[in-house]
Amino acid sequence: MIVRRLLLYGGSEQSPRDKEEASRESQALAFARFQDFLSGLVSRQRALFTGSEQSPIEELLERLMTSVGEISAIVLARQVLDHYKELDEEQQLAFFANLEANFNANEALVKVAYDAYSRDPSSINLNKLSRATEPSRLSLLRRLNQTPGATHDLVAMRTDLLNLLKDHPELAAVDEDFQRVFRSWFGRGFLQLQTINWSTSAAILERIIRYEAVHAIRDWDDLRRRIDPPNRRCFAFFHPALIDEPLIFVEVALGQEIPDSIASILDSQGEDADEEGEYKTATFYSISNCQPGLANVSFGNFLIKQVVQELRSEFPGIKNFVTLSPIPGFNRWLKSDEPEESSELAQLKAEVLALDRSQEAIVENEAVLRRCVFNYLYHAKRGKHPLDPVARFHLGNGASIFRLHAGADLSDKGMHQSFGTMVNYLYDPAQIESNHEAYAGQGKIEFSSKLKSLLLKL
Amino acid sequence: MIVRRLLLYGGSEQSPRDKEEASRESQALAFARFQDFLSGLVSRQRALFTGSEQSPIEELLERLMTSVGEISAIVLARQVLDHYKELDEEQQLAFFANLEANFNANEALVKVAYDAYSRDPSSINLNKLSRATEPSRLSLLRRLNQTPGATHDLVAMRTDLLNLLKDHPELAAVDEDFQRVFRSWFGRGFLQLQTINWSTSAAILERIIRYEAVHAIRDWDDLRRRIDPPNRRCFAFFHPALIDEPLIFVEVALGQEIPDSIASILDSQGEDADEEGEYKTATFYSISNCQPGLANVSFGNFLIKQVVQELRSEFPGIKNFVTLSPIPGFNRWLKSDEPEESSELAQLKAEVLALDRSQEAIVENEAVLRRCVFNYLYHAKRGKHPLDPVARFHLGNGASIFRLHAGADLSDKGMHQSFGTMVNYLYDPAQIESNHEAYAGQGKIEFSSKLKSLLLKL
Amino acid sequence: MIVRRLLLYGGSEQSPRDKEEASRESQALAFARFQDFLSGLVSRQRALFTGSEQSPIEELLERLMTSVGEISAIVLARQVLDHYKELDEEQQLAFFANLEANFNANEALVKVAYDAYSRDPSSINLNKLSRATEPSRLSLLRRLNQTPGATHDLVAMRTDLLNLLKDHPELAAVDEDFQRVFRSWFGRGFLQLQTINWSTSAAILERIIRYEAVHAIRDWDDLRRRIDPPNRRCFAFFHPALIDEPLIFVEVALGQEIPDSIASILDSQGEDADEEGEYKTATFYSISNCQPGLANVSFGNFLIKQVVQELRSEFPGIKNFVTLSPIPGFNRWLKSDEPEESSELAQLKAEVLALDRSQEAIVENEAVLRRCVFNYLYHAKRGKHPLDPVARFHLGNGASIFRLHAGADLSDKGMHQSFGTMVNYLYDPAQIESNHEAYAGQGKIEFSSKLKSLLLKL
Amino acid sequence: MIVRRLLLYGGSEQSPRDKEEASRESQALAFARFQDFLSGLVSRQRALFTGSEQSPIEELLERLMTSVGEISAIVLARQVLDHYKELDEEQQLAFFANLEANFNANEALVKVAYDAYSRDPSSINLNKLSRATEPSRLSLLRRLNQTPGATHDLVAMRTDLLNLLKDHPELAAVDEDFQRVFRSWFGRGFLQLQTINWSTSAAILERIIRYEAVHAIRDWDDLRRRIDPPNRRCFAFFHPALIDEPLIFVEVALGQEIPDSIASILDSQGEDADEEGEYKTATFYSISNCQPGLANVSFGNFLIKQVVQELRSEFPGIKNFVTLSPIPGFNRWLKSDEPEESSELAQLKAEVLALDRSQEAIVENEAVLRRCVFNYLYHAKRGKHPLDPVARFHLGNGASIFRLHAGADLSDKGMHQSFGTMVNYLYDPAQIESNHEAYAGQGKIEFSSKLKSLLLKL
Repeated sequence: MIVRRLLLYGGSEQSPRDKEEASRESQALAFARFQDFLSGLVSRQRALFTGSEQSPIEELLERLMTSVGEISAIVLARQVLDHYKELDEEQQLAFFANLEANFNANEALVKVAYDAYSRDPSSINLNKLSRATEPSRLSLLRRLNQTPGATHDLVAMRTDLLNLLKDHPELAAVDEDFQRVFRSWFGRGFLQLQTINWSTSAAILERIIRYEAVHAIRDWDDLRRRIDPPNRRCFAFFHPALIDEPLIFVEVALGQEIPDSIASILDSQGEDADEEGEYKTATFYSISNCQPGLANVSFGNFLIKQVVQELRSEFPGIKNFVTLSPIPGFNRWLKSDEPEESSELAQLKAEVLALDRSQEAIVENEAVLRRCVFNYLYHAKRGKHPLDPVARFHLGNGASIFRLHAGADLSDKGMHQSFGTMVNYLYDPAQIESNHEAYAGQGKIEFSSKLKSLLLKL
Repeated sequence: MIVRRLLLYGGSEQSPRDKEEASRESQALAFARFQDFLSGLVSRQRALFTGSEQSPIEELLERLMTSVGEISAIVLARQVLDHYKELDEEQQLAFFANLEANFNANEALVKVAYDAYSRDPSSINLNKLSRATEPSRLSLLRRLNQTPGATHDLVAMRTDLLNLLKDHPELAAVDEDFQRVFRSWFGRGFLQLQTINWSTSAAILERIIRYEAVHAIRDWDDLRRRIDPPNRRCFAFFHPALIDEPLIFVEVALGQEIPDSIASILDSQGEDADEEGEYKTATFYSISNCQPGLANVSFGNFLIKQVVQELRSEFPGIKNFVTLSPIPGFNRWLKSDEPEESSELAQLKAEVLALDRSQEAIVENEAVLRRCVFNYLYHAKRGKHPLDPVARFHLGNGASIFRLHAGADLSDKGMHQSFGTMVNYLYDPAQIESNHEAYAGQGKIEFSSKLKSLLLKL
Repeated sequence: MIVRRLLLYGGSEQSPRDKEEASRESQALAFARFQDFLSGLVSRQRALFTGSEQSPIEELLERLMTSVGEISAIVLARQVLDHYKELDEEQQLAFFANLEANFNANEALVKVAYDAYSRDPSSINLNKLSRATEPSRLSLLRRLNQTPGATHDLVAMRTDLLNLLKDHPELAAVDEDFQRVFRSWFGRGFLQLQTINWSTSAAILERIIRYEAVHAIRDWDDLRRRIDPPNRRCFAFFHPALIDEPLIFVEVALGQEIPDSIASILDSQGEDADEEGEYKTATFYSISNCQPGLANVSFGNFLIKQVVQELRSEFPGIKNFVTLSPIPGFNRWLKSDEPEESSELAQLKAEVLALDRSQEAIVENEAVLRRCVFNYLYHAKRGKHPLDPVARFHLGNGASIFRLHAGADLSDKGMHQSFGTMVNYLYDPAQIESNHEAYAGQGKIEFSSKLKSLLLKL
Repeated sequence: MIVRRLLLYGGSEQSPRDKEEASRESQALAFARFQDFLSGLVSRQRALFTGSEQSPIEELLERLMTSVGEISAIVLARQVLDHYKELDEEQQLAFFANLEANFNANEALVKVAYDAYSRDPSSINLNKLSRATEPSRLSLLRRLNQTPGATHDLVAMRTDLLNLLKDHPELAAVDEDFQRVFRSWFGRGFLQLQTINWSTSAAILERIIRYEAVHAIRDWDDLRRRIDPPNRRCFAFFHPALIDEPLIFVEVALGQEIPDSIASILDSQGEDADEEGEYKTATFYSISNCQPGLANVSFGNFLIKQVVQELRSEFPGIKNFVTLSPIPGFNRWLKSDEPEESSELAQLKAEVLALDRSQEAIVENEAVLRRCVFNYLYHAKRGKHPLDPVARFHLGNGASIFRLHAGADLSDKGMHQSFGTMVNYLYDPAQIESNHEAYAGQGKIEFSSKLKSLLLKL
């Protein structure tokens, strides 16, 4: 058996480091032990599972669904998941097609249950119908999840599925079922908020570097500048079944003023606490989802609200909770030629489109840029909600549009997306809930009164 | 805010104790902070939730299901759960009756979905039908579970429900839905096996004392004798959402010989390791489910199998994994006058029934007692499986009947249940799985060849 | 090798419980491994240590002092400590007498070093002299401390020594050397303050019950009432080399008023926090030293001051930090017939001595009791400091005498010691240091102005 | 107060990460609280310590030694340590000169104590003399160590002292006293062995990168290759008073064969475990002391022996415990013109000196290089022990010379030091102790019989 072992000097107390060690090592140990145990079973049960290791994955799935033995089921689940990892894209497609075609429900039983229900729509008959109509894919996913490490593998499996889905919309039902089980497993009650700082393990920090999606972290020194100084914070959600894997994280800069450029955060040390050790402003300047396989299993909204609570409790002096956010959809919208409802807005778009993407041009045209961006955020819609994905996230969360800064992000990406313009969304604890409800209900967008003059009446 | 605070001397490293502390304290702190936050919201949102604190619980449930705001939903869930705790039995009944009657599905939508499905039973149409037929009780339970501490409250709520269910079978559908969500939340992948010993926190140990259901633990000294000596072990399953609450635990005695009486375990120090520090036998002498609200959400079978793995890894020398189990259904069966299929067995029953329940009588009639008990375990059935609940548990788990001991439990309870007789079930790792499959499939009961002579052919 | 093993389910995260476990288990494991290793060495090195296991302890000590090998030294240290545990009292006496007689210094070398120093009192010559005059007992104690678990054994060894010392004052030098090494090892920088509550491990809580010296803890329920409720706190100092062994602990009751009887703390639930969740008074009602072997290696003074800091930080609203203390020396002083300096005081003593030790008598004579006790605390001295040991502790710590309560402790012990009278010492953070300095320098005792009228001018 | 706060989601269990967090955060918190407390005291006690913040450090030291108040002493200790950090090199020199000149002993009291002792050399008189001759520098260092964080500052202070000592040998006595207190504080019983791997905190790993002294770690990827793969291990000693600061660490490569070049370890993935998951050889290829301020307070010898124990326990199959070590003193010795005792050896030196430092030359002259290096290791001495510092460390630890490899380290450093030659020292658990004793006693050097033919008889 190859497992790492924990080892400590016998005569003295363990430090936190050891315990961290102890925990991980013992888990590795238990995991290896369980794998050994499974392997032993697999070889011992060769009579039962004739040729199982060479079995096509379809046969393994079939066996998993019909297995009576509890241990056999765990062994089979592990075999399916390991087998899956070897599949190339075409084979993956066949795998999901099989899930789509053959893991539905027994039509006859559905009919029987429906007939009973339509005669007597009692709660018992409804439950029977509900169970009869549950696609057996759900049961399959639950069975797969019984083996150690399965949750991790299933999240990776859905990442593959999402990639295939674009060209294979017929797999939509499979994805719906992944979402159903994931929503249940990743319920808010099981998420754990944790601080990320320089005392966090390298295994986790390495993933923070890898997953940062907004403002790339160049290396470990860059990481340290973002999580170690007293005026920086980072928070992440974890789930007990995904060890060392953050689900989503947010980076925060503390200071006095509301920042008007990303460089003032990334390239400077930022502002210190005042004499009483307090800060006035907390800026959420980067939020990254880490698990593409958990798309649409949302928890980002809880993250920010809970972090606001934490920061209020630590720094009662903080008055402003704001973001410093990119406007990723602006350029695309600008170039789109949908018939605008207002000639005024169309003219504004044309004016901006004509601009040079140079620092000078931005400085000179700050007013027009801010006006155009604000009207984009406010008026450009998909359905009743904003077209811009970042706006949709924060406004849907209960934030309001607070300030706009031209020339706030001079990186190539920033210049391309929004002519370097950025926006502060404001999270005012007293307004979050009512904003959210007005937004969710009527699609209402709140904004600072100072921005009122920029608004075009369409 | 009233929360306990963690505090430590600044200049030196923390010990494990501190970290345990740190962990619990910080959790209490965060919990209190979140409660404060909720209360703040509740009072601030009085306009929104007019009179909410006086609202009947039915109104709160209604609002919870229709709430758009995420925070409102969390606040409402907490209010429902707190409100529920104040209900007397009659009000609880009304609460569950409401769940049964009013949290089903929209019949019209079910019909539409069914019609589409019956025309085209595609996976997408099945998914739609499946969602349409899902009782809204499930959604309600999931919404309730979003608030801190909810899982604990919901398990307690089901305990009440199970009590009411006996006289109110019409609530069965409600219980089915509790089971559905619990099975998803308490999936095997989220259970954590932990050792319980003298270093475990008093908060957990206190529950071990309280929950022990087989051989009562008299006091802390008695507890210590069961978990602290080197030849004793205790293991429990925990779940991350139920803090400090064991789900199920098993007590183990290590020794050389297979024990033939419970006194040799409870009232003596037991056997020491041999010169190489090894034991030959591990005896599971008590298994207790801790959470009545999790009935039928089984994990006991995994517990024993995983504990067997752990013990094998620690003590490669252990040859025998056995239980020392009571036979709780024997007396009831003896007194029952169901027409036995065999006059031989009927005669045996009569013979035993005529016995004095005294130690002397047992000694004199050891042979007849063992024969009668064995035939009870083997022949008395409910359906195709044993009538005796403990036999059903272990044989269903893959164990076999190994030995019988008359006079093994001279307590009042033991004398009453089975004339003091106890049984060793054997967990042979090489046979567990095949035993389990034969039992699950054909109801086959395996037993030691030495017992063959006791068997009546019926 | 017999060690307990840590075990965890492979597929999910460990909880704090596990880590606590992991830590202790791994330590036990490493300890066992090291013991095995030592035993292996001992048997392998039988040639080197011929007959070592039968060696008289004197021979083992000799070898330990002359051993060149590092591992031999660790093995020998363990043999000495194990051997010592087998000694009866007479043999212990011989052991310590040997330490006293034969582990001093080389007189000739001392002379040489002194001559050099007296010719040239340079720092180098002083260092040489200092090393030459260091009794080899110190070196012996340090060598013994190299083996796992040694610190614990050496503290126990000194407990024996202190018992013998009463009748064998010639061992005083040995005790001085124990104190010297202990003071270095138990320096304040290595002490760890920890909260003790219901989440603390049973292994530690059991010792809290055992070591409580002031108001005995009857059982685990009594313990829980003292550490679990929100208005109770318990703090202890630990040392990294003494695992699970508290050094000293203090029990605290939080409330609004300053308590005037011990029953109001021990027999009632005490006072709740006010509406803002705050308390006004913290009462230290019991302080227990746990390690008799660490007598005169003081840390009690730091404990209270640090706990005051912790409580202030958690409850900014606390105004009063007081004790509720016994007066253990009062009765002895009352009965002593030392010529009092003042006839007034002598008369007061006589008056109290004549009292019945009944509740009625106390109620009737409350004024005279309080007056007599106060003058005892203030005037009865040993040297320049109070005769009463508890008064000496708190006043020496920087506290002042705040209030006196007749009938505050009606237990047999309380009635016997002080006619049921108790005292509040006040820890006023703003005065602690100046009080302490005035006390240490001039023996000045501070007291509340309200007590002024009770004071006899002697 | 500016402290980071711990924060966690209220409703679910904490993961190990949190606890690590919790621990560090709470410690930071307590530390900050204590600092606040100290600052408060300092300002409040300005009357007592008039102008203390401007006081020259000499005055602070004086006050610290005469302070009666316990808290004043802690405050003063902190002031001294903070003040010291501001000193430039010249001022440091003055500071240590003050320690040397003015913190010795009272000559008159030494004389009195010596006279008493010379009349009656009793243990009590010896103790008195011992205390009288103890330089007050020791007491000063102990008093300084009472304030939070002091141990860390004192280790840094000795680093400065060691730098000054080269040019100021008159400070030797001061350094002797630092060593005396450090040896007591860093006793083996307080050291904690810990594994370093990819789950270790970045705060510690960053120091591993910084402190690696033998084969520099280029970046985090290089670090990961050394600690994360299953065939790599790293172990360090920690001390409870030096948080996150390793004292010494060793890097280990596991494999089948004994490695003959450093490139086979650093630049390749090394060898895998065999089919049973076992390794045959453990190679200690880098050992780094981290704290220059702890020079001569040795623990390196324990580290390797304890790591050998740990690895044996995890991998019972390991047969060879060897180092792959540089020969740092070879080139210097080669160029030195000390009159060699043997013309044969002198000739060998000349032959090697004449060689080109090129890979070709090494390949061609492998035999002569190995012969020369072996005779250097064996014959070149300082006193009775080897001249080469690495040889002195391992041979003094109980290792033997096992194999020599020409061309094993082709780096500039390796070519310069030893013409690229490296050596395996062998740690044979059965021989460690006897080797060590023979070496310590007679300076005997053990070597493999295969090397015998290389040995020159001098």
